[in-house]
Amino acid sequence: MSEDNRESSGIIDILKKRWSPRSFSNKNISDESLQRIFEAARWAPSCFNEQPWNFIYFRRGSESYNKLAAAIMDGNKPWSINAPVLVLTVARNSFERNGKSNNYAMHDLGMAVFSLTLQALSEDIYLHQLAGFDAKMTSEIFRIDDNFSPATVLAMGYLGDPEALPDSLKPSEKKRTGRKPISEFVFMNSWKKANNL
Amino acid sequence: MSEDNRESSGIIDILKKRWSPRSFSNKNISDESLQRIFEAARWAPSCFNEQPWNFIYFRRGSESYNKLAAAIMDGNKPWSINAPVLVLTVARNSFERNGKSNNYAMHDLGMAVFSLTLQALSEDIYLHQLAGFDAKMTSEIFRIDDNFSPATVLAMGYLGDPEALPDSLKPSEKKRTGRKPISEFVFMNSWKKANNL
Repeated sequence: MSEDNRESSGIIDILKKRWSPRSFSNKNISDESLQRIFEAARWAPSCFNEQPWNFIYFRRGSESYNKLAAAIMDGNKPWSINAPVLVLTVARNSFERNGKSNNYAMHDLGMAVFSLTLQALSEDIYLHQLAGFDAKMTSEIFRIDDNFSPATVLAMGYLGDPEALPDSLKPSEKKRTGRKPISEFVFMNSWKKANNL
Repeated sequence: MSEDNRESSGIIDILKKRWSPRSFSNKNISDESLQRIFEAARWAPSCFNEQPWNFIYFRRGSESYNKLAAAIMDGNKPWSINAPVLVLTVARNSFERNGKSNNYAMHDLGMAVFSLTLQALSEDIYLHQLAGFDAKMTSEIFRIDDNFSPATVLAMGYLGDPEALPDSLKPSEKKRTGRKPISEFVFMNSWKKANNL
């Protein structure tokens, strides 16, 4: 049976704790924390152990941060650019081993991002991922090699006060957070065949 | 600084614990554990909260399990089909909201898989993911809708004795487990620019 509340879902605490806030405090993230966060990405599994994930991080107040912020779409901008750290995630599109297209690059990047998300959470650092940015512009600005594709921007920081957000953003804090019941995405023995759980 | 050993890497215990074994014990996975494992996938984040992940699970001994096993490439077969549960992961390729192609489907499936991996680990259930299977064949056998693509097979079970594996598989237990140093995939302010960590 699927619970509608992750608190009562029976999953482990670090997974219950995860959500995507829009308000971050002013507190900076230390280099030591960032190092552990990226170390967590490092140990994710990947197809042929290719580790196709790459990350560029930016600290608020730097010129580079502002350049990335300019590539974020307006709807995301008001909340994302109050994060002390932004990270541009970049997937390597081909295998290093043979140059062929890696159909698992995005999949494996996603695993690495989820891994670093939990390490961050364990230190009370929350992430909000966004896909609403101009990937082509970031490729040009940051001179990313042709063989690599920017995938997401991670806004990262300690929790802030949602009341400090502009009014237009407050209701969205609770938007689109529902989940499908397990019966809609878990099947037994064949596609769309009911599970036994 | 990157450590070559995840034990001393400073990351949280559940991430340190994760690895991909090739030997599983005979112990079955209960329905209750499977329910929690898929519940963990359920709470992963996704682009537009589309939740593009889908899973078909198979218990060892069933006809369906044997059909999936037949689609696994020979190199993976000797170890994967001793797992008590196999899961075929399936990504929805287009957005439900507007029918457009979802470039984050594999990314978000990867996050959901990593989430369920950690829930499983918390109950001493280990996963080994494999991409070496005939996806087209599984689409046909299990009548998966056109708009969905099989992505990986997850072999899932409690740890077994590696000594019980055929000799040809034993050395592979330790193969390809090295990781790139953080300096190779984490940059500050621009592509390939050294990080400060």
